[in-house]
Amino acid sequence: MRSILASYSHRADEYAERLGSMTSVHPSDLQLVTAWADEVRGPLLDAGCGPGHWSGYLARRGVHVRGIDLVPAFVEHARTAHPQVMFDVADVDALPLPANSFAGVLAWYSLIHHRPGDIRRALDQFARVLRPGGGLLLGFFTGPALEEFDHAVATAYRWPPEVLSDELRAAGFEVIETHTRTSARPQPRPHGAILAQLSHSRANLIS
Amino acid sequence: MRSILASYSHRADEYAERLGSMTSVHPSDLQLVTAWADEVRGPLLDAGCGPGHWSGYLARRGVHVRGIDLVPAFVEHARTAHPQVMFDVADVDALPLPANSFAGVLAWYSLIHHRPGDIRRALDQFARVLRPGGGLLLGFFTGPALEEFDHAVATAYRWPPEVLSDELRAAGFEVIETHTRTSARPQPRPHGAILAQLSHSRANLIS
Repeated sequence: MRSILASYSHRADEYAERLGSMTSVHPSDLQLVTAWADEVRGPLLDAGCGPGHWSGYLARRGVHVRGIDLVPAFVEHARTAHPQVMFDVADVDALPLPANSFAGVLAWYSLIHHRPGDIRRALDQFARVLRPGGGLLLGFFTGPALEEFDHAVATAYRWPPEVLSDELRAAGFEVIETHTRTSARPQPRPHGAILAQLSHSRANLIS
Repeated sequence: MRSILASYSHRADEYAERLGSMTSVHPSDLQLVTAWADEVRGPLLDAGCGPGHWSGYLARRGVHVRGIDLVPAFVEHARTAHPQVMFDVADVDALPLPANSFAGVLAWYSLIHHRPGDIRRALDQFARVLRPGGGLLLGFFTGPALEEFDHAVATAYRWPPEVLSDELRAAGFEVIETHTRTSARPQPRPHGAILAQLSHSRANLIS
């Protein structure tokens, strides 16, 4: 992940300026994340929070949220912009957080650079820190086949929802909802979202 | 379609009582249909409107909507419940409506009894009555494979979103969004929705 860290650190200010605000969020995504977060009954982790705009928004709604990101410049930005939220530098593949400590994990475009063979590391971490029955909401680039493409910052991957769903089930999650937005308009790339729930039986096996 | 008509006619009152009101609509479906309908710029056809609850709701929002259904008992119910909306008895496979006359078609669970080989008839009709660039919103039962099952009223079919998307593209539509809700909770059967747009070039070929 060194190159991802370096690439984002180099462009953190530009990224925060362009995408680090709720005004750049698609209305459907805002509705989905809001409706999901409002149902989470307990602490929520914004995993790969970037400049912290989702955390700030959710905190203003009364959600008990904290954020982590691999990129120190993002965490600094998030702390300044949203002083009411706790942000830390951390890797989604090795979360320095106790097991069974969250009711929800939001991973909004934060696994897009994971190589397909490595995505389970992050999903296993989410399963570990979530309570049994806890919720996970993933946002990602989608497409008809699992393939890499040149993202502005670093190589990223498109996931067909059913392929990512298989990874989630293997990590102990039940897939509850899938959403895709595939038009070239109004956003540049096909978007996917999956809402999953940690199985009640799985959590204790891996904590 | 004779048996579908007979089956629904026989149970129209029971169906209207149980499912013919907006209070039985899932909140996510309400949000999806509302957001879509609010963007439709022109007349909207509620194709297979049943007891007319969607039409009534959309008319109250100011949408210029009319409804059609194959089952006379549903149309009677709809006319009584929503006198401000025009409802007619008609078959989605042979719409008695002029070409290019609607900006949107809502087909919410109205193609669930179509045999897979016959669904194009209805989709071609939707493409015919829609203006170029017009919108189509489908609600349907979904599942990992295209298969029939015993629905309360008559045999119905589960469609994987990608299979139904292929049918839509063949009928001249571009698929814009897909949504699935696959949990057993809170609703009994996995649900799918597809939002599509009639290609600008296709409409004139088939009108």
